[in-house]
Amino acid sequence: MITGKNYIGNQLSAEGNKVFNTFNPMLNKENKWAITEASADEVNQAVEIAAEAFKSYSKISGAKKAEFLRAIAKEIEALGDQLLEVYTAESGLPNGRAMGERGRTMGQLLAFANHIETGDWVDATIDTAQPERQPMAKVDLRKMNVALGPVVVFGASNFPLAFSTAGGDTAASLAAGCPVIVKSHPMHAGTGELIASAIIKAAESTGMPNGVFSNLNSSGIEVGQLLVQHPKVKAVGFTGSIKGGRALFDLAAKREEPIPVLAEMGSVNPVVLLPKALDDKAASIAKTYAGSITVGSGQFCTNPGLILGVKSEGLTTFVNVLAEEIVKIEPSCMLHPNISGAYEANKATALSQSGLEVLGGYENEISANYGRQVVTTVEGETFLNNPTLHHEVFGPFSLVVQCENVAQLEIIISKLEGQLTGTVISESNEIADYAGVVSNLQDRVGRIIFNGVPTGVEVCAAMHHGGPYPASTDSRFTAVGVDSIKRWVRPFSFQDWPNELLPDALKNENPLGILRVIDNSKTTDKI
Amino acid sequence: MITGKNYIGNQLSAEGNKVFNTFNPMLNKENKWAITEASADEVNQAVEIAAEAFKSYSKISGAKKAEFLRAIAKEIEALGDQLLEVYTAESGLPNGRAMGERGRTMGQLLAFANHIETGDWVDATIDTAQPERQPMAKVDLRKMNVALGPVVVFGASNFPLAFSTAGGDTAASLAAGCPVIVKSHPMHAGTGELIASAIIKAAESTGMPNGVFSNLNSSGIEVGQLLVQHPKVKAVGFTGSIKGGRALFDLAAKREEPIPVLAEMGSVNPVVLLPKALDDKAASIAKTYAGSITVGSGQFCTNPGLILGVKSEGLTTFVNVLAEEIVKIEPSCMLHPNISGAYEANKATALSQSGLEVLGGYENEISANYGRQVVTTVEGETFLNNPTLHHEVFGPFSLVVQCENVAQLEIIISKLEGQLTGTVISESNEIADYAGVVSNLQDRVGRIIFNGVPTGVEVCAAMHHGGPYPASTDSRFTAVGVDSIKRWVRPFSFQDWPNELLPDALKNENPLGILRVIDNSKTTDKI
Repeated sequence: MITGKNYIGNQLSAEGNKVFNTFNPMLNKENKWAITEASADEVNQAVEIAAEAFKSYSKISGAKKAEFLRAIAKEIEALGDQLLEVYTAESGLPNGRAMGERGRTMGQLLAFANHIETGDWVDATIDTAQPERQPMAKVDLRKMNVALGPVVVFGASNFPLAFSTAGGDTAASLAAGCPVIVKSHPMHAGTGELIASAIIKAAESTGMPNGVFSNLNSSGIEVGQLLVQHPKVKAVGFTGSIKGGRALFDLAAKREEPIPVLAEMGSVNPVVLLPKALDDKAASIAKTYAGSITVGSGQFCTNPGLILGVKSEGLTTFVNVLAEEIVKIEPSCMLHPNISGAYEANKATALSQSGLEVLGGYENEISANYGRQVVTTVEGETFLNNPTLHHEVFGPFSLVVQCENVAQLEIIISKLEGQLTGTVISESNEIADYAGVVSNLQDRVGRIIFNGVPTGVEVCAAMHHGGPYPASTDSRFTAVGVDSIKRWVRPFSFQDWPNELLPDALKNENPLGILRVIDNSKTTDKI
Repeated sequence: MITGKNYIGNQLSAEGNKVFNTFNPMLNKENKWAITEASADEVNQAVEIAAEAFKSYSKISGAKKAEFLRAIAKEIEALGDQLLEVYTAESGLPNGRAMGERGRTMGQLLAFANHIETGDWVDATIDTAQPERQPMAKVDLRKMNVALGPVVVFGASNFPLAFSTAGGDTAASLAAGCPVIVKSHPMHAGTGELIASAIIKAAESTGMPNGVFSNLNSSGIEVGQLLVQHPKVKAVGFTGSIKGGRALFDLAAKREEPIPVLAEMGSVNPVVLLPKALDDKAASIAKTYAGSITVGSGQFCTNPGLILGVKSEGLTTFVNVLAEEIVKIEPSCMLHPNISGAYEANKATALSQSGLEVLGGYENEISANYGRQVVTTVEGETFLNNPTLHHEVFGPFSLVVQCENVAQLEIIISKLEGQLTGTVISESNEIADYAGVVSNLQDRVGRIIFNGVPTGVEVCAAMHHGGPYPASTDSRFTAVGVDSIKRWVRPFSFQDWPNELLPDALKNENPLGILRVIDNSKTTDKI
């Protein structure tokens, strides 16, 4: 049952007097469960108990935290069909996607459990003392990663599970030893409450301190603003629009004590089609990309919104086939009227730009909240001179830029904003002749793909999901994979500290048996 | 010979029309060499060639970069006595300190050369493909650290060598593959030019691209502001005051593309004296701290500006002996009239606070620009209620807070701003009884010290030099030690990338023979 209440730690609470309902975009009507927004007082309570919980939670063993994360995964599974029903009712996404995303969310939690269980991840580094050193004795120094403090997580509209309440940001924070306060996404607040209930159950059954997790509802921006400005909040994770992410970043930067905001934001994910590849397989590339552009109604941060090629017969074939293929695909429901409305508005803005030509798009009747895909094209020069065309149109939209020559292609790439991904479509050897193109593209992205599609973000250690601004607010951190834990920790040094009072990771005996850097060498040895 | 010109890459340049002289605080008069400030055009030139140099410099091998860093150390040594003479003339610091700091600076460059030579530091992480995986094939992903882009370094007043032109920030940036533009510190611009000449010689002799290093003079804030706002600058390193660091942080946060500012700023470095330690050795602790407070005229970021204890006979002995000892020490010359002037002003502000009592201080005649040390004391309650007393007084000043009881001590610690260091002075076993004190102190600092002094920052891998704001702008990074390279790199993923086009660190054959994470296991194996 969805109560519509907030979780202030393990207490359900609904002191506020603003109430809203989530929306079923497939049925085009409100869901029946009413959600109560958190009051300013509830925001404060959640942060205060998180700060209190931090004192003990930040110090418990990796094994205990792993147990907690695994229990969350189990409790999510135990939510059963109800979770899938509420998920689909709040997102318009199909049941198969709900199941897939649930599996991914559980997989992330388990991956973090494995990652932190041993203690290797704390990067234990030891320099032993040299009391006889001249002219000055060398002290004993031991360094490891420790948790930052309470983290506020803003869920994403487009991933109600994997990038929301118990998503990657939350899993990484809890793994690091940071209590989490989720600002629930208003579009799927019911899903959020169910997941929150699973986390709370897991926290209770594994003996975690109250306050290690809270879930706050809000349909507006006030709750989020209060959270980001609260002095006891030490970091923020966000997945969403550039506008939203930048607003939080600015707010955090203006605090008396600025805190890091790791926001993963928009991206047009440029795809470069090299000439020989176009000569040889323009049609099949076009078919693949018609699929990648429209998958999930284009509601992925890695959606290929920009395709670049040099004018040629091959490119002409590509745009023709893309135009044919794109209309064959049945549109699907978007997440919310606000999302489909924004898509229509941003698409209209793009289509009104001088020089932009529609290649093809779905034109038949569609149900309410569905997104009609469209692919467009423009000359290189026109693209270069119109920054509006560089902006993401969130939804099933893509723009093919037809460059005059390779030199223009390189310039265009070098002028792009920061991106999550860049893709090169190449006949096997041809890419070696385009070092300038590749080098410029690498400079603008966080991940580069050879002969693939940017959609589909594998959750693994070698994945970097982030990129130069505005793909993210700090290109030095990933939002996906176990290294995303690095966002929520800081190194800490102990100098001449008594061995028995050191954390296990730094003790002489190496009781965790982890790999450590001792006097500049990697070893599992004792001291 | 000091020309007073800027280095725009390997070109000496003095297009500007503002000229200033550095100052010899020992002689209390200007040095004879005139320094020409960089013009806005020169700032732009330096950044443009840095961005151009980045294209090749970011991709050269670790071995080549190591050669460059080692050549810089050699060229610094080759500057010989002239460097020491100019250093002492521009800082008032003694020759022994100049030699020590020169050694430390060279040591840092060599440590980074060793660190990057093998390639281990790029954190190579590989997840191999699983083409047969159901329901979806797994792609091949390979991740490593790559350079961020041109870095601007602001040198520190109090370390003309080790935290300035070729100091830790520069060494870490060059090691990472980032060109550096130094905004030379106006107090030691002559020293800066000499060091810059050494870096340029090393860059030329080892075949580095022009623009890999520039050195710009400025006595005001304009050059720094232009640099931080330049779109092609990608990160900033700073060591200095909270006011200066925060101004740069704010400027960088407001950019269209915000960039990281790693500023290491002020700290009062609290020292907690536990009761038994005071009972047993109050006098010897006081003698040690009289030295630590006054070393280098208190001009260290780790100077112990705040000493905390619970009222007792032992604490009374401590303050009495500290008062006796502190007057015995001969004051020394401060860095510059502006520094000694600020010290006098900040000291006067502190001394004017109600409830603050002077324990003792040097009162004899001193030469111009010398700093008279003073130690003071205050009740716990008074300290808690007066934020002014929490601020750093840069110079040989310290405040002893006499707490009513352990509970008050804990509260005081928990209310402190972020600090670089915290120290606990303890009889061997007694610390175990003060878990709350230690836990609160850990939360507020980046390094915790047992029975020592905070001054003296060992340069080694296990050193963390940073801390919660305002000790630094981002507690997740260190300013000292080889891990400080992490400030200037971002992870980058290659997906299904052709093996022959991958960087060596990620190739199947592991040609560098480095330790990599392959499918979640650490190994030096080939694939």
